[in-house]
Amino acid sequence: MQFLSDNAAAVHPQVWEAMRAADEAQPPYDNDALSLILDERFSALFGREARVLWVATGTAANCLALATLCPPHGGVACHREAHIEVDEAGAPGFYLHGAKLMLAEGDGAKLTPDAVCAVIDPIRDDVHQVQPHALSVTQASEYGRVYQPAELEALGALARERQLGFHVDGARFANAVAFLGCTPAEAAGPCDALSFGCVKNGGMSAEAIVFFDPERAALARYRRKRAGHLQSKGRFLAAQVLAMLEGDLWLANARAANAAAAEIAGACGSRLMHAVEANELFVRLSPTERDALRGQGFGFYDWGSDAARFVTAWNTRPEDASALAKAIAAL
Amino acid sequence: MQFLSDNAAAVHPQVWEAMRAADEAQPPYDNDALSLILDERFSALFGREARVLWVATGTAANCLALATLCPPHGGVACHREAHIEVDEAGAPGFYLHGAKLMLAEGDGAKLTPDAVCAVIDPIRDDVHQVQPHALSVTQASEYGRVYQPAELEALGALARERQLGFHVDGARFANAVAFLGCTPAEAAGPCDALSFGCVKNGGMSAEAIVFFDPERAALARYRRKRAGHLQSKGRFLAAQVLAMLEGDLWLANARAANAAAAEIAGACGSRLMHAVEANELFVRLSPTERDALRGQGFGFYDWGSDAARFVTAWNTRPEDASALAKAIAAL
Amino acid sequence: MQFLSDNAAAVHPQVWEAMRAADEAQPPYDNDALSLILDERFSALFGREARVLWVATGTAANCLALATLCPPHGGVACHREAHIEVDEAGAPGFYLHGAKLMLAEGDGAKLTPDAVCAVIDPIRDDVHQVQPHALSVTQASEYGRVYQPAELEALGALARERQLGFHVDGARFANAVAFLGCTPAEAAGPCDALSFGCVKNGGMSAEAIVFFDPERAALARYRRKRAGHLQSKGRFLAAQVLAMLEGDLWLANARAANAAAAEIAGACGSRLMHAVEANELFVRLSPTERDALRGQGFGFYDWGSDAARFVTAWNTRPEDASALAKAIAAL
Amino acid sequence: MQFLSDNAAAVHPQVWEAMRAADEAQPPYDNDALSLILDERFSALFGREARVLWVATGTAANCLALATLCPPHGGVACHREAHIEVDEAGAPGFYLHGAKLMLAEGDGAKLTPDAVCAVIDPIRDDVHQVQPHALSVTQASEYGRVYQPAELEALGALARERQLGFHVDGARFANAVAFLGCTPAEAAGPCDALSFGCVKNGGMSAEAIVFFDPERAALARYRRKRAGHLQSKGRFLAAQVLAMLEGDLWLANARAANAAAAEIAGACGSRLMHAVEANELFVRLSPTERDALRGQGFGFYDWGSDAARFVTAWNTRPEDASALAKAIAAL
Repeated sequence: MQFLSDNAAAVHPQVWEAMRAADEAQPPYDNDALSLILDERFSALFGREARVLWVATGTAANCLALATLCPPHGGVACHREAHIEVDEAGAPGFYLHGAKLMLAEGDGAKLTPDAVCAVIDPIRDDVHQVQPHALSVTQASEYGRVYQPAELEALGALARERQLGFHVDGARFANAVAFLGCTPAEAAGPCDALSFGCVKNGGMSAEAIVFFDPERAALARYRRKRAGHLQSKGRFLAAQVLAMLEGDLWLANARAANAAAAEIAGACGSRLMHAVEANELFVRLSPTERDALRGQGFGFYDWGSDAARFVTAWNTRPEDASALAKAIAAL
Repeated sequence: MQFLSDNAAAVHPQVWEAMRAADEAQPPYDNDALSLILDERFSALFGREARVLWVATGTAANCLALATLCPPHGGVACHREAHIEVDEAGAPGFYLHGAKLMLAEGDGAKLTPDAVCAVIDPIRDDVHQVQPHALSVTQASEYGRVYQPAELEALGALARERQLGFHVDGARFANAVAFLGCTPAEAAGPCDALSFGCVKNGGMSAEAIVFFDPERAALARYRRKRAGHLQSKGRFLAAQVLAMLEGDLWLANARAANAAAAEIAGACGSRLMHAVEANELFVRLSPTERDALRGQGFGFYDWGSDAARFVTAWNTRPEDASALAKAIAAL
Repeated sequence: MQFLSDNAAAVHPQVWEAMRAADEAQPPYDNDALSLILDERFSALFGREARVLWVATGTAANCLALATLCPPHGGVACHREAHIEVDEAGAPGFYLHGAKLMLAEGDGAKLTPDAVCAVIDPIRDDVHQVQPHALSVTQASEYGRVYQPAELEALGALARERQLGFHVDGARFANAVAFLGCTPAEAAGPCDALSFGCVKNGGMSAEAIVFFDPERAALARYRRKRAGHLQSKGRFLAAQVLAMLEGDLWLANARAANAAAAEIAGACGSRLMHAVEANELFVRLSPTERDALRGQGFGFYDWGSDAARFVTAWNTRPEDASALAKAIAAL
Repeated sequence: MQFLSDNAAAVHPQVWEAMRAADEAQPPYDNDALSLILDERFSALFGREARVLWVATGTAANCLALATLCPPHGGVACHREAHIEVDEAGAPGFYLHGAKLMLAEGDGAKLTPDAVCAVIDPIRDDVHQVQPHALSVTQASEYGRVYQPAELEALGALARERQLGFHVDGARFANAVAFLGCTPAEAAGPCDALSFGCVKNGGMSAEAIVFFDPERAALARYRRKRAGHLQSKGRFLAAQVLAMLEGDLWLANARAANAAAAEIAGACGSRLMHAVEANELFVRLSPTERDALRGQGFGFYDWGSDAARFVTAWNTRPEDASALAKAIAAL
């Protein structure tokens, strides 16, 4: 009964199937028949013209996107607990050639226009201080919180006003859309580029970078190769991404994960540190309580000294979620 | 009857099998049971202590290896037609933070100590000129030529004498070992790091960087994550690499490709631009002759205006190789 | 009666004189007779073996020093208001190829071991998080506060324990030494590299990077040229630095600036935001009060909405300092 | 009787005078009265709108200019013996974040459209190969050869056609203009940015980057600070540059250097390896002959084993030039 992370869960059978179907040789890199239809599929999904590149990881997706939005001498405003700041080993510094992350506060790892302004307004408009060039938010956030479309619109308006590129890290974008019940376009907001996650949602090794600006996508194609992320058998990445879209598998998987999280959340009451809107739970639990749960066979990470993090996945068994809910309720 | 490239060939059934067997969730990144035994397996294979990291592409493998051998202000001596110079979109400049490739000449894209010295000896030992810090060779070379162990020893001796790191790009290392009939250690020479290719030899999306120095490997682990190349479901990459080693599949695959190339080579006579030692053939063919071959259903790339490149793969059908041989002989 | 900054003050006559004396042609770059004696002079000054490079700016000095202490994938702990973080346009990101500044708190822009640990202790020792590799403090600090030798020893002990390189930004190092009345070695602490400032202290365009490790200095020589900071008529920079040392001009200049600041401080009482230990004063003054002072001919910068910053320099006239002191007292 | 280089020659008295006149405190960085008139002066000089930044070295000037013309994933075509390739310690790799220099051939270190095309035409228009984004020529060249206006027009036409930025390294631009007897605009050709050299022509530590595109200049201002090249007492650099323009001192100095070179050239006959058009002479001289000249008190560098390089400067004494001419004639 594992709730450690969704990032190592099994691969969905439909993804396997699509990969096997792609085995036959095709032109290499992204010239295969599958890669070539990504633009069209995502344009349809988002109702705006999209250009799509696959890459193997969310870190690569985020950084390649940001590298088209911010020059080496610029800055990217993001949350202090954003994945790009905390868990990507300085990859933005590498891909953006030393650009700076500008760290804003906000409940649940979510940004607001005010929080962003608190960081960028004090910056003097001179050459001695790094100027902001982009904004990055995570949908759903690192604490499993989801931006409402109106919240993204407000951030997008700020971005436009300040001439900031707007990036959405959507490692768990599917969970956000499943929660919101809105269109993908609404859940992405008026962004320039979206890291559309698949790996945590039943994929194996493919994420999609969705650009809503053809010029940035063209730039990213050079940067992807230069970063060693243009795989020669790219058809297997395209196959994964397309399998996720097929029949809305991505939403079905995310709904399953969200539902499991919601059931557990129902048992947590005031133990919850953050509202549960996606598939992550941050739960106040004493060391003794955590031991008790582990003794019952539940796997999860500690979150500091007095809490734990539980993550559900597309394949979390309902009975496991129920068992965990009961076990927490019984503490 | 495709001879376009080995880089998009189908994935070997044993690789598929190993990937499927790895589907069950495991600790993420490279903490899974498969990734953890890579060091041991490669240490046994090479008879020296090895530390091994998987990555998705040869470009990433080469550049992560080189980044441990050369500082940003240094230079890497390589052949003028080395893959790192010609076909990696400037990735060494990115990964090595602006380090310089120092281009040497040599038949068949092979380096010799003399050719390297011709490039590095004229460099003044002062701060105005970029100093050489590493040497990179490709085994088998970009023209399908293979370094004899003694040739690598001579280059290794030069590297030691000049305090240069020594890297081997082994995108087609298996083909070289299969040709030489020697041990992998002999075919790699006294190098510090080897990019051990799998993708062109029946893999899907995994190459192994083999470090013969634990400190450089430790460094590369940070750099790999920072480059967005640490996949969370890394077990699928480890599975591919291990499947290649299992029962010497890597050598069996390479032998099959080499044999197909040899058969075709036998029909080419003086048309051959380079001795055929691995799985690539560079063949003088007029436009008319190339048209004729294409008319018979053979797929291949032009190589300039008067030649063609044919590449065999692990799954080239013997009858296709025979057919091509006959067709060329009949021209 | 200008108290805007020391960074644009006139050049000291002895510096001019030394520069004129250096006019005659010499070997270029740092091969002239003046540059060649820098190591010896600074070794004597610090009582430890030192290797010294001149550069034109404090930003270059800081960044070239740090680039020898921290790899591209590492981090440098510094104060949230450190000059390298706030006022160098992201130069550390450029020179250190994307390394990260890790921001610590502390009164008066001074670090303590505890403040540094609060930032680096939570970092997980894995490849997902940037690991700290160096520590940088400013002596005197950005708020004109001075580290006592024992405070530097404590930071040095932490640096040793955690294997962090230790850098001191000494843009106003002279003012700190003048305040402490100790040896330069004591005021620099057990650091690996010191940016020894001259420009704010009567120089024109030369700072000295003092390395206490020959290997790092050797590395920095390549990096200096690569950054376009190796001037061909370097003798004029060496001349400035040597003129500062000659007859302890650097200390005399700093004492004059400190004395002027002290006199003004005496009139400020509880208006002072920070103890005045060097040549900067941060003084609570309402807009009306600031207008009044400006009306009397005093030049200075606002510091937020309710304060002002005054900086004295080597050539601040005593009568101007007295006049300012009286004017503030009279408010 | 030194002919080693112009890069360490004495500073012209008028430059000294202008620097002394600038001693009085002014706003720091480039906000002083002198820096503020650079744009206007150079716009008048070139008859087109120019934006001008001072920096301390030619390397910084070249690299800051190029960094506005070529992205990190691009390439800059230049001569194989260009200073940026040979003598700047890899600074372009640093400033351009790993961009590539693409090396073309050409007599006298001069490029032609054909020579550039020979390098860039074979580049496949795909993401695997670095694409050219800029072109850099040196006026006068590294061998003292000068581009005629028509030659620059032809290169400029190529640059426009291929959408390449066009940079001129004018470390010895004054010598070229003096030789050509044309306008500065004609001698610079239709370039986007010119490194206008002063240091080798009687300055101390200031070069001017002349941008003919305000946006690129704005970008370079951030990059200059980020590179540690924005000096706080920038007025001393502006003073040097303005002194060079005052009364056409730059041309007078260059004419003097050129005249000295021409006199020596007259004695060299077929010993000359390159036509002498500026202030450098490359002269075939045996070791014995070089010994003889050195025995007579002439200082110069060897150029390989059978030649020598002589460089004249603004302050080369006519009698020294005559003496050298006679000595060579007498060999």
